[in-house]
Amino acid sequence: MKKYILTLVLVAGIVTISFRGDRKMINDPVIRSKVITQVAIVVKNIDKARNAWAQLLGVEVPEVSVAESNSSRPTLYKGKPTDAKAKLAFISMENLQIELIQPLGGKSTWQEYLDSHGEGIHHIAFAVKDINGMENKFDSRGNPTVQRGGWDGGAYSYIDGSNDLGCILELLENYN
Amino acid sequence: MKKYILTLVLVAGIVTISFRGDRKMINDPVIRSKVITQVAIVVKNIDKARNAWAQLLGVEVPEVSVAESNSSRPTLYKGKPTDAKAKLAFISMENLQIELIQPLGGKSTWQEYLDSHGEGIHHIAFAVKDINGMENKFDSRGNPTVQRGGWDGGAYSYIDGSNDLGCILELLENYN
Repeated sequence: MKKYILTLVLVAGIVTISFRGDRKMINDPVIRSKVITQVAIVVKNIDKARNAWAQLLGVEVPEVSVAESNSSRPTLYKGKPTDAKAKLAFISMENLQIELIQPLGGKSTWQEYLDSHGEGIHHIAFAVKDINGMENKFDSRGNPTVQRGGWDGGAYSYIDGSNDLGCILELLENYN
Repeated sequence: MKKYILTLVLVAGIVTISFRGDRKMINDPVIRSKVITQVAIVVKNIDKARNAWAQLLGVEVPEVSVAESNSSRPTLYKGKPTDAKAKLAFISMENLQIELIQPLGGKSTWQEYLDSHGEGIHHIAFAVKDINGMENKFDSRGNPTVQRGGWDGGAYSYIDGSNDLGCILELLENYN
């Protein structure tokens, strides 16, 4: 009987340790999506870049739009209002979009990246729900919001992942 | 009859112009694939980064492997042999892999990126065939190979796209 109880205690102990080990590895995710929706490249000259990408991939040269502050969710850079603008162009790949961004002045994460790094891949994007709640979740794990804004029908937030993730993430919420 | 010939010439002219217009926009692609297979982030501390990414996504912490020169295709950095090494970890997303890279010294595009930019998104990758021929195609359009190497069963080349594309591309060929 003693042996039986000892075995039982031992097995229970092993199961508990294994379970704790699993819980350590598989947490509740901060981001539920496992899809990267965009890879964004900050460039100096969007016309040169969009022509080069189109030629590289054998696709039509993408059109240019302008991102600017929108009353639905005014642009904030490090918590303060900014009149930052940028030219954008999107190239549709099979599994995501390549976004080209040319900053047009004003304080922004795009301009800061260009000034301190030069041209390069600025962020990867995830589609999320409850973008404001997500900002708080990230903030509490040491990843503050560096810039936020919106457009008619959607919102974006750039999360500074330099503390542990090694890059900037963009959260995108589509209200439609 | 004259009217008929005139119409014919006019239509032929319009068709020719349209065709040339299309050819201007839709070129023969340099890269046929429209799929980004990897997004790679250069980090200082791969253990910190892989734990952070696993926690962010609620997945298992990915294992670490070491990339080093392989006799099948020795590592060249800017055309010269190098003993560069790096720790790698891969996180499988639904539509691509996130690759974490910690340079371990030796001259490499990874170390150069970390030294001059700090942590950040180093490249995006495409699967290709005839990787050596692809290197030549890129070189002739002003995008030299910055680093190349291989592993048992595959080859990689980093293409410097700073001339027009705004970032580094990785070409990956799997021989199996």
